[in-house]
Amino acid sequence: MKVNIEIINIGDELLIGQVVNTNASWMGELMTKAGFSVQKMSSIADEAPAIQLALDQSVGNCDVVLISGGLGPTKDDITKKVLSEYFHSEMYFDENAYAHIQQLFASRGFAVTQVNKNQAFLPKKAQVIKNGNGTAYGMWFEEKNTVVISMPGVPFEMKAMLENEILPRLTEKYNIEKYADLTLMTTGLGESFLAEKIKLVEENLPSSIHLAYLPRPGIVRLRLSSRGEDKRLLQIQLQKESEKMIHILGKEVVYGFNEESIEEALGKILKERKLSMATAESCTGGMIAHKITSISGSSAYFQGSILSYSNEIKNKHLGVSDKDLEDFGAVSKEVVLQMAVGVKKAMNVDYAVATSGIAGPLGGSKDKPVGYTWIAVSGPKETKAQLFQFGEHRGRNIERASLAAINMLRLMVLEDS
Amino acid sequence: MKVNIEIINIGDELLIGQVVNTNASWMGELMTKAGFSVQKMSSIADEAPAIQLALDQSVGNCDVVLISGGLGPTKDDITKKVLSEYFHSEMYFDENAYAHIQQLFASRGFAVTQVNKNQAFLPKKAQVIKNGNGTAYGMWFEEKNTVVISMPGVPFEMKAMLENEILPRLTEKYNIEKYADLTLMTTGLGESFLAEKIKLVEENLPSSIHLAYLPRPGIVRLRLSSRGEDKRLLQIQLQKESEKMIHILGKEVVYGFNEESIEEALGKILKERKLSMATAESCTGGMIAHKITSISGSSAYFQGSILSYSNEIKNKHLGVSDKDLEDFGAVSKEVVLQMAVGVKKAMNVDYAVATSGIAGPLGGSKDKPVGYTWIAVSGPKETKAQLFQFGEHRGRNIERASLAAINMLRLMVLEDS
Repeated sequence: MKVNIEIINIGDELLIGQVVNTNASWMGELMTKAGFSVQKMSSIADEAPAIQLALDQSVGNCDVVLISGGLGPTKDDITKKVLSEYFHSEMYFDENAYAHIQQLFASRGFAVTQVNKNQAFLPKKAQVIKNGNGTAYGMWFEEKNTVVISMPGVPFEMKAMLENEILPRLTEKYNIEKYADLTLMTTGLGESFLAEKIKLVEENLPSSIHLAYLPRPGIVRLRLSSRGEDKRLLQIQLQKESEKMIHILGKEVVYGFNEESIEEALGKILKERKLSMATAESCTGGMIAHKITSISGSSAYFQGSILSYSNEIKNKHLGVSDKDLEDFGAVSKEVVLQMAVGVKKAMNVDYAVATSGIAGPLGGSKDKPVGYTWIAVSGPKETKAQLFQFGEHRGRNIERASLAAINMLRLMVLEDS
Repeated sequence: MKVNIEIINIGDELLIGQVVNTNASWMGELMTKAGFSVQKMSSIADEAPAIQLALDQSVGNCDVVLISGGLGPTKDDITKKVLSEYFHSEMYFDENAYAHIQQLFASRGFAVTQVNKNQAFLPKKAQVIKNGNGTAYGMWFEEKNTVVISMPGVPFEMKAMLENEILPRLTEKYNIEKYADLTLMTTGLGESFLAEKIKLVEENLPSSIHLAYLPRPGIVRLRLSSRGEDKRLLQIQLQKESEKMIHILGKEVVYGFNEESIEEALGKILKERKLSMATAESCTGGMIAHKITSISGSSAYFQGSILSYSNEIKNKHLGVSDKDLEDFGAVSKEVVLQMAVGVKKAMNVDYAVATSGIAGPLGGSKDKPVGYTWIAVSGPKETKAQLFQFGEHRGRNIERASLAAINMLRLMVLEDS
């Protein structure tokens, strides 16, 4: 049985963009993984007509409405009032809720204020849901075959209530289809080229399996997802289809699974094989090293870097020939090859990667426009360089060059072993 | 005139919580600041019935519907098809769009694939909107006094299109109250301390001016905003009030304006005074250099860095005494001071900054727990170090240490001149 869920997040701060709605994605992920089907998420204002309209559009059209926000003690929090009127429910004073609120205040050394006492008035038609972390109780209404649940908006209160109190009750109430997904992380091929390559596999996917292409700069994620009775069976089916794709695309393109980054993938390979690395960066300005060292445990394989923005440092610390710097320019194949070899030697490592390019927006020329970037990798067996032409945007050029460099290094280590 | 906007973000990845909907908050903020009133945001599935229902609920009920997502070249992208059917529009092949797509592919050295060629088929009833950063064109429909605009979901494509192409047309179409704001960027004082200091100015602000405290790790933004008929007048008023605040807080605290970063502020000072700098990084792993070189024109003052994850490199390339490394450990005042002096000499620069700390999550001890971080700055007049105790989270520790280091350097350069 498919159980459709709609999520409504109440709060002006969401609409003006002051707060990014992380509650919605957290709720979406929890409910999806539990086997529910999230149909829609809405962010609306702390205003009665907006809440009523959202209820009109949801009640009767889905199985469960999860509402967060607007349950605080202050004037701008009106969700409880609006829901009680919407469901024509009188209020009562809940002694248990009041005892809980008193206890919470006592534990913090305060007396209960009147506005907080008012939080113990709750609608008769609702089952109330205890809030272990705060004073705002949750409410569970049922009408026209739709369950409407209201929770606080404070993330850690909402999360504990949804996960520990509400989800078990919903899972019991409905007999739910299980959900499984598997994401292949790919690099080096754009969306349309990937689609061309795996066309046959995609066309022959079982109808129960859904494939989504999710691009990010330099990366495309292929997400396979499915629903059914038996979670293990779903996982086996996804595994089987993903293997067909990996077989076609190869390990060069599919570098990992489920949100793994390229630097994580590289780190794993280096760690396994007890290899070390260093970087010599010009246009990427430390971004490659930053990505590598963001990974916990990277000190096992990362030795260090020499970032050389000036020619003097390229010469003095990396041993790049002054004549080549003069003849070919800092952004050239000759120079980037020497940078890679130079840092490998200076840091006494197995592998090194080097970058030299025009990040922009200034510094471009006709021959070497903004985005023109040389990347070299050097290992025990060989040293090689590749030319890339990225775009016009500095930040994206740095990001793309860093991803490309890490990936070139990953490919060389894979080839060598 | 109040112009009501609804935002619809299309994409299964939003509903299952794989992606946090940062597009919505970005769009909300941009439109709010431009004087529009955002009523509602919805995230819906890449499915025709979901898109049709969302349109039914919005068209006729608000002035403008902004849609993002589902315009990619692959099978799961159906927004264009659904919109064309919804507005009963035939398709035509847009030669200009195709030329643009061809040009984009050519600049990357590829031939256009069939699926990308299909992106040049566009609905006759729409005004099309050029996408400077991608192959998916935007579309502008009008029906029942509602403008419906469809944009790509890729954030940087959507942002450029909304800000540069769509917003100017909407502002022209509707006669909107002007909005002005001015943000002071501060560092070094927490929210409540800032509030104490500028209490009098805040209490005497004209009632039309709103002040918001917007904290971020290491930074508090003070945003002054106002609405009215005459934008220039609004700006003059904001300027006047902001100057009172700067007078009280000083340049040490107010480092810049309007989302300027500390590294931008540092860069300006260095550039003005024709000074140069370098970094020696251990725990920050290149993050300081990355931040500095993210700024266009940083090659005027940034010479380079030596990133030394190992003791060997601290000794060999930065001249840190082996005995001190042994006696005090790599994370110590003695070592970080020598790192700063060492890189200043090696790179032949005016100023240098160095970091050595336990980024975590591993590597902490009782004496030097995770987050324990030494930062040193060295200039023509002196060299000094400061100890920080950050938290437990690796990513945040790297970020906070980098901000603190850049700010220490900024303060030293300010003091020296």
